[in-house]
Amino acid sequence: MSDCVFCSIVAAELPADIVAEDEEFLAFRDVQPRAQTHVLIVPKVHVDDLDAWLASGGSSDRMLAFVTSVAAGEQVAGRYRLITNVGEDAGQTVAHLHWHVLAGPRLPGF
Amino acid sequence: MSDCVFCSIVAAELPADIVAEDEEFLAFRDVQPRAQTHVLIVPKVHVDDLDAWLASGGSSDRMLAFVTSVAAGEQVAGRYRLITNVGEDAGQTVAHLHWHVLAGPRLPGF
Repeated sequence: MSDCVFCSIVAAELPADIVAEDEEFLAFRDVQPRAQTHVLIVPKVHVDDLDAWLASGGSSDRMLAFVTSVAAGEQVAGRYRLITNVGEDAGQTVAHLHWHVLAGPRLPGF
Repeated sequence: MSDCVFCSIVAAELPADIVAEDEEFLAFRDVQPRAQTHVLIVPKVHVDDLDAWLASGGSSDRMLAFVTSVAAGEQVAGRYRLITNVGEDAGQTVAHLHWHVLAGPRLPGF
């Protein structure tokens, strides 16, 4: 099993509540949701963070199109917060690029 | 002057502490910073939010490349939080697509 928990989810070695996927990306529910809707979106290939994604030549067009399609599928189009943390100092707890899609009543300030 | 405060900044009709710009994007400091580093990045054309940006065919590759270049220029590469709010319900207060780049000690949870 991979040392990376998100790689393990991508490989179906760990369970997850999967919301959507395509060839490149996977979306699944955060196990500790901080809002009514809290979905994580990851590239299936391992890259540490957004900076590494861009350095690797990954397509942000396809990635953000997938993100917005997930938001639409969750019925939160037009009312969601999108966050990615780059590095531990910013609060990144898993060193595999992931976007948080958060939505629901009373989203806190940030 | 435009009804949109960010369009007015792009048009130099309102002052802003500009950090970086290219043909398509502008980065400037938030007037009410919520972290040691708090920069806003906007497309120069008016689009309401990320969903509208994608619908308009805007390049997310170029947009996120600009975002990360701004983070690097601010000396926060590898330690920043990137947020965009889509819609008022998610906390979007200006209806012109903008990314928050936040960095510094003791970034709060979100």
